[in-house]
Amino acid sequence: MTDLSAFLVGLDLLGTFVFGLSGGLLAVRRGLDLVGVLALATAAALAGGMLRDVLLGATPPAALAQGRYLLTAFAAGMTAFLAGPLIDRLGKPVLVLDALGLGLFAVTGCRKALEHGLDPIAALLLGVLTAVGGGALRDLLVAEVPRVLREEIYALAALLGAAVVVGADALALPLGPAALLGVLAAFTLRLLSVARGWSAPRSPWSRR
Amino acid sequence: MTDLSAFLVGLDLLGTFVFGLSGGLLAVRRGLDLVGVLALATAAALAGGMLRDVLLGATPPAALAQGRYLLTAFAAGMTAFLAGPLIDRLGKPVLVLDALGLGLFAVTGCRKALEHGLDPIAALLLGVLTAVGGGALRDLLVAEVPRVLREEIYALAALLGAAVVVGADALALPLGPAALLGVLAAFTLRLLSVARGWSAPRSPWSRR
Amino acid sequence: MTDLSAFLVGLDLLGTFVFGLSGGLLAVRRGLDLVGVLALATAAALAGGMLRDVLLGATPPAALAQGRYLLTAFAAGMTAFLAGPLIDRLGKPVLVLDALGLGLFAVTGCRKALEHGLDPIAALLLGVLTAVGGGALRDLLVAEVPRVLREEIYALAALLGAAVVVGADALALPLGPAALLGVLAAFTLRLLSVARGWSAPRSPWSRR
Repeated sequence: MTDLSAFLVGLDLLGTFVFGLSGGLLAVRRGLDLVGVLALATAAALAGGMLRDVLLGATPPAALAQGRYLLTAFAAGMTAFLAGPLIDRLGKPVLVLDALGLGLFAVTGCRKALEHGLDPIAALLLGVLTAVGGGALRDLLVAEVPRVLREEIYALAALLGAAVVVGADALALPLGPAALLGVLAAFTLRLLSVARGWSAPRSPWSRR
Repeated sequence: MTDLSAFLVGLDLLGTFVFGLSGGLLAVRRGLDLVGVLALATAAALAGGMLRDVLLGATPPAALAQGRYLLTAFAAGMTAFLAGPLIDRLGKPVLVLDALGLGLFAVTGCRKALEHGLDPIAALLLGVLTAVGGGALRDLLVAEVPRVLREEIYALAALLGAAVVVGADALALPLGPAALLGVLAAFTLRLLSVARGWSAPRSPWSRR
Repeated sequence: MTDLSAFLVGLDLLGTFVFGLSGGLLAVRRGLDLVGVLALATAAALAGGMLRDVLLGATPPAALAQGRYLLTAFAAGMTAFLAGPLIDRLGKPVLVLDALGLGLFAVTGCRKALEHGLDPIAALLLGVLTAVGGGALRDLLVAEVPRVLREEIYALAALLGAAVVVGADALALPLGPAALLGVLAAFTLRLLSVARGWSAPRSPWSRR
């Protein structure tokens, strides 16, 4: 149990780092200065978890109560600031990091909701909110329509990750592997949907 | 009392549905896909109530703790997705639904604040925040200046609805009829102001 | 102790007033009507403190539980509405008021976090969030990229103000003078940075 907790905290910190990196890289690309880079990294990294904890009534949120979250977000921001274009050259890092963070936060958000006694449907919603919250704030702060609304399989990928956790919980399967599987499922669905151009159906009435 | 509670929950769910519909219809009109439609419907339907409950410390919020809110929001989103243009043909549905949701949430938000022991002024503010919160998030997410700032008699209509509830509470009048009257007053003032082009005064210094 | 509390509440109300004025003046300049002016004044004045209290779990937030915050915000909005251009003629009032509010809220936010037992790093973060939250919402509501991201020494000035408070607390120095010094330091750094065109470093990779 302690091992599982530590494992989940590890996933949460990894999500914090990769979302922080996505925010920091976006800020560098927009030509923001060091403070702007750290601010956007922190917003992207911590907002989803803060929203989760506030909605659960678990205040002060882990992102405030435990210094390691803030330090992780800052480390991600500094990494983006110092090595931005190197990372950019690796391909589409914001996209990939964002997909990984999406899976990690969907899983840890959903898990924490179950631990607080929420029922499965609410846990799914909270997993999705945790996963999309940080990215949505990141995009709103630089005046973009959030990715969750612009791109097809995004909230759906978070939902899949959370659903794996809820399903494993309902079947009393071991949670460590289920968490990993949930992260992997969300990450894979998200990236596959981008690579293949999958999209969710549009309204039959929608013209374009 | 139980009857009144059930009645207020009914008003709250109706507000959830009509705000969800307003969000879903806006998403369809913008050409968003099914996930985007459900996301915007959910945001519009649940954000105001979540804000209310978080500010009251009533966590987890009703929108999470009780599955019926989320199901109602999804039903509204699916309705918008499947029947969007049919509804659009009825006139200006987003405007009308938004006005109805405004009245419903102003009343239920204000009522819940009074039940939690807030004083009348604070209850008025919380009623207005509940009423305008979901719509503001809906508009921000698609990069529009929220209706509450663009349009004249909007927050004022919510304030009127909340004031009826606060007044009835202070005079110990029966709350069921007062709640209905509050919804009706906010709805009517909002639609009248649009139909007649009423506007609040501008600053004497404002040029346009 | 009671004197110090009263003093801190005074600083908090002053911050509420000046941030409210900054929001109201922005609304007048955008040609919004009376309701829009009051709404933007209230959002700018109260959102930072509400965010602070929600994150601390101190609900309902002071801005709701105590009528004087709302009245202060409204007074600021009415002042902007009635005397906007007179104030505008004094120079760059939004900038100066915003700088003062930034310092005041950084100090009171940080102080309240320490009182709630947060550790120094978390108290710094909460001070900064309190200080930048209202202004960020104000700017987002009129579809602007928030000042905290656009301008160089902004979050940094809030951080300096909060750091003075944390430092004084760690050294057990008297808190009243430390609070004043913190406000002054943040205010001065912010205005100096604007006057002199100081900026934080940009990423070595950033082109512009």
